[in-house]
Amino acid sequence: MERFQVRTDLALEARESFEEDGVEIRGVAIEESYDEERDIRVTRVNIETENGAKAMGKPVGTYLTLEAPRLSDPDEGYHREVSKQLARELKSLLGTEEEKSVLVVGLGNREVTPDALGPEAVNHLMITRHVVREYGKEALGKSKVHLVSGIVPGVMAQTGMETFEIIKGIVDETRPDVVVAIDALAARSTKRLNRTIQLSDAGIHPGSGVGNHRNSLTKENLGVPIVAIGVPTVVDAATIIYDATGDRDAISPNLNGMFVTPKDIDETIRRLSFTISEALNIALA
Amino acid sequence: MERFQVRTDLALEARESFEEDGVEIRGVAIEESYDEERDIRVTRVNIETENGAKAMGKPVGTYLTLEAPRLSDPDEGYHREVSKQLARELKSLLGTEEEKSVLVVGLGNREVTPDALGPEAVNHLMITRHVVREYGKEALGKSKVHLVSGIVPGVMAQTGMETFEIIKGIVDETRPDVVVAIDALAARSTKRLNRTIQLSDAGIHPGSGVGNHRNSLTKENLGVPIVAIGVPTVVDAATIIYDATGDRDAISPNLNGMFVTPKDIDETIRRLSFTISEALNIALA
Amino acid sequence: MERFQVRTDLALEARESFEEDGVEIRGVAIEESYDEERDIRVTRVNIETENGAKAMGKPVGTYLTLEAPRLSDPDEGYHREVSKQLARELKSLLGTEEEKSVLVVGLGNREVTPDALGPEAVNHLMITRHVVREYGKEALGKSKVHLVSGIVPGVMAQTGMETFEIIKGIVDETRPDVVVAIDALAARSTKRLNRTIQLSDAGIHPGSGVGNHRNSLTKENLGVPIVAIGVPTVVDAATIIYDATGDRDAISPNLNGMFVTPKDIDETIRRLSFTISEALNIALA
Amino acid sequence: MERFQVRTDLALEARESFEEDGVEIRGVAIEESYDEERDIRVTRVNIETENGAKAMGKPVGTYLTLEAPRLSDPDEGYHREVSKQLARELKSLLGTEEEKSVLVVGLGNREVTPDALGPEAVNHLMITRHVVREYGKEALGKSKVHLVSGIVPGVMAQTGMETFEIIKGIVDETRPDVVVAIDALAARSTKRLNRTIQLSDAGIHPGSGVGNHRNSLTKENLGVPIVAIGVPTVVDAATIIYDATGDRDAISPNLNGMFVTPKDIDETIRRLSFTISEALNIALA
Repeated sequence: MERFQVRTDLALEARESFEEDGVEIRGVAIEESYDEERDIRVTRVNIETENGAKAMGKPVGTYLTLEAPRLSDPDEGYHREVSKQLARELKSLLGTEEEKSVLVVGLGNREVTPDALGPEAVNHLMITRHVVREYGKEALGKSKVHLVSGIVPGVMAQTGMETFEIIKGIVDETRPDVVVAIDALAARSTKRLNRTIQLSDAGIHPGSGVGNHRNSLTKENLGVPIVAIGVPTVVDAATIIYDATGDRDAISPNLNGMFVTPKDIDETIRRLSFTISEALNIALA
Repeated sequence: MERFQVRTDLALEARESFEEDGVEIRGVAIEESYDEERDIRVTRVNIETENGAKAMGKPVGTYLTLEAPRLSDPDEGYHREVSKQLARELKSLLGTEEEKSVLVVGLGNREVTPDALGPEAVNHLMITRHVVREYGKEALGKSKVHLVSGIVPGVMAQTGMETFEIIKGIVDETRPDVVVAIDALAARSTKRLNRTIQLSDAGIHPGSGVGNHRNSLTKENLGVPIVAIGVPTVVDAATIIYDATGDRDAISPNLNGMFVTPKDIDETIRRLSFTISEALNIALA
Repeated sequence: MERFQVRTDLALEARESFEEDGVEIRGVAIEESYDEERDIRVTRVNIETENGAKAMGKPVGTYLTLEAPRLSDPDEGYHREVSKQLARELKSLLGTEEEKSVLVVGLGNREVTPDALGPEAVNHLMITRHVVREYGKEALGKSKVHLVSGIVPGVMAQTGMETFEIIKGIVDETRPDVVVAIDALAARSTKRLNRTIQLSDAGIHPGSGVGNHRNSLTKENLGVPIVAIGVPTVVDAATIIYDATGDRDAISPNLNGMFVTPKDIDETIRRLSFTISEALNIALA
Repeated sequence: MERFQVRTDLALEARESFEEDGVEIRGVAIEESYDEERDIRVTRVNIETENGAKAMGKPVGTYLTLEAPRLSDPDEGYHREVSKQLARELKSLLGTEEEKSVLVVGLGNREVTPDALGPEAVNHLMITRHVVREYGKEALGKSKVHLVSGIVPGVMAQTGMETFEIIKGIVDETRPDVVVAIDALAARSTKRLNRTIQLSDAGIHPGSGVGNHRNSLTKENLGVPIVAIGVPTVVDAATIIYDATGDRDAISPNLNGMFVTPKDIDETIRRLSFTISEALNIALA
């Protein structure tokens, strides 16, 4: 039976849509934990086989999701807690027990508010690579240092280039140990907007996520591991219609290329980009 | 019979929703013309009575709408044509046969892309008031000059003040002959987004447009006439669900405060804000 | 004997130039204290008489200067210390033992980096007036609340209006108890750039500070007290030539309208604007 | 005899400083022409030998300078004339009689106004590479098309990487025929600020221009030709002191890292970046 493929960048939601349909998926393992005090739910989705990948519409890999409903509140202390939790997960994913050279990429269009998450986060980052290279570790007063570099590549309409081309070129030239890519995502449900953070080692795939892999930001294509940090900041307009009607034909062609986002998105992006850059600053300090 | 009040800032669309229902509205007069060569449709909606205002959900006044589908193309020459047409309508509305002092207000939040239309347009404006006041008309080499001033007041979450309070204060202090307010609007239909320009002398009404008039930007409240220039750049998320389903109960509370906008909104706002400021620059040259 | 009037917005420096000349000034009282641990020097200059004002080229009033050389370091903890010290002085100047309604004005041009201090600081401010007016003090969970509003008026080339006209209008309409104006200043010496914060109750005077007072932001003109917070971020180009040569004729007319500023001014402004807004957030919490 | 090395990025000025000293330079050829009607002076400085390069403090190559004093006026028609003249020179330098793939690099810090010239110019550019690659030349309705891509790499304090590393990586990956780099320059004299445009094929050299060439953007290092477009928007603070006093010791260490720029630099950068991007849009249409 054909299904309308609702667009979501969250593995969590891809799985939920199967649960709704009462379908079980082989090759996908789930693990959940809930921190009641801080109201943070952590879900680990492991897509283990190509079969699981096909079913989920997402490549093989680990997807870690933090759901923290209070992220939408302007509570600085709470954001700090989430940064610390995120930092712990990042340390483990990045392997920071050893010195690492990390290239942080701020994906998205800095001129479109809900897409500016990555560029804004890179703005707040503690950049150290040039200091260490010029003055040595001593300049930072530490015996173990990570080298942090950052780039905001822009989007194809601004550059005429695939993001992959830009990042691949910079990786080949500067040889980081790992790439961290920060990106605004599309969710299926508005209730997850700006309250959910996804970490993944499965790479970033422009377009559908399955099929043409040539321009994907993956370990295979880049030659170094990639950790993606994403926050859903928009929902595809077509998706909310489909969810309300269950009817593909109800989706007007005018909705093509349209997205849904909250009205206070500017403050939200400012806060979330800061929460993410703080997590990286803690993890790579 | 109760109707779900779909949100639209376009008088044109408020009227259409009645046509769909087969309802005739007393106190509302319509006039249409179509320029085939340039594919610009001009519709003049006159809300003449309080009865018409109540039915339409819009205050008494004239609403002039230019529908120009090709506005979404990056065709500079076409945008210039629209600027000229708009300038003609503005000259007539502003009464530029006499010297006028005009305060242009860029409404909206410059940090949220689809809401930045007004602030961007004021950025491109030829500001002359201070030059004429300091050096006389001669400084501009003309015998007849209009005095143009501009302000970007910000939104209430940024200022803690009603926009009306800010503009009223500045009007009382600087005594312009007329206020022009540029604003991003909400449309009912995505097909009108970024292709339609509405001129109106009915003022600007935060919130519903009927009811509490205390903070409305109207001739009555400001003490000087106001001309509003608006372009729909978003659609309320609830509206597209209602339009697809015809069912109020299909609208999830999560959609509250959410809007729909196209992905290329940054370029669109850049072009449209320029088209509007050019129209004002021509009209007030 | 005629003196070349070097431009400085710092009362501290105006006084120093007399010391250099070995001249004593009647009507001007000085008081200094130094916090060795934190390396912050506080100087209080009281211009008590019109004679003192004429000599100093600054209006009668109190000028409090914090010199904190380490402000140019990216040391967050130190900036926080300065914010707290500043907050203490502001509380006393604003009289926060009683509930106050405070309009904070971010002067300057947000598009010119060293002039963006005021606009940036207002961006980071906790704005509360609209919340308290709509939902009452309870909404903030406190029995004593200050009402904070904010405005970024822009500069005359952008608005065609005097800053005074805009602020006077808004003050008359919204009736705050006090105005706080944040502004980037010109220093005489590059050694004070971005390391010095001046608080003053003497108002803000476009141009020379003496002579035409019509457009000054003063208690007399606005009808409410004004506290100015300023940080020198530029030095007039003519001044550094005069200081190097002692010769007015060495100043090329090409230097007219030119200023001197450091290359890392963007990070500096980001940090300092945050330090100032934090001071206000603490003082008005 | 030792000379104080005044900093200038303009070959024109490097040469003048010799003329002042009455020194003739072997290996440097000069050619001048003047368009009286439009008041544009074009000077071609050819540094032909390493001896000439050493004397001038600039690498071997051709430096073409357009001096157009009226560039500081807000005269759109005049700016258009300069764009056309610049386009003619660019066509010849880029060899546009054949189809070319051109990567345009906007150097500098977009957050510091006088340094934002390059980033702003890339913003206004007609980017075509992705369209042609996806839809073919037909999509642009032309038989001969140039492929235009663009990148704003940021500065080392933001990225932790040398600009060379970023551009070299992207060039290796996307293989353009030629790189065009737009950059804000330092002049020796304030009279040239924002009125002079320099085109050069000699590459871009961070720091002094002689010595360490490892991170220079040159044909040799990049593997493809590079055309640099520069406009002086600042003067080193030390330079204006030296010029006023002729005395190195008059330069205070506080002036280190300080620059001089005009107060209306935001409007100036907006106009000039547009003039340059228009020249490229014409040349590559």
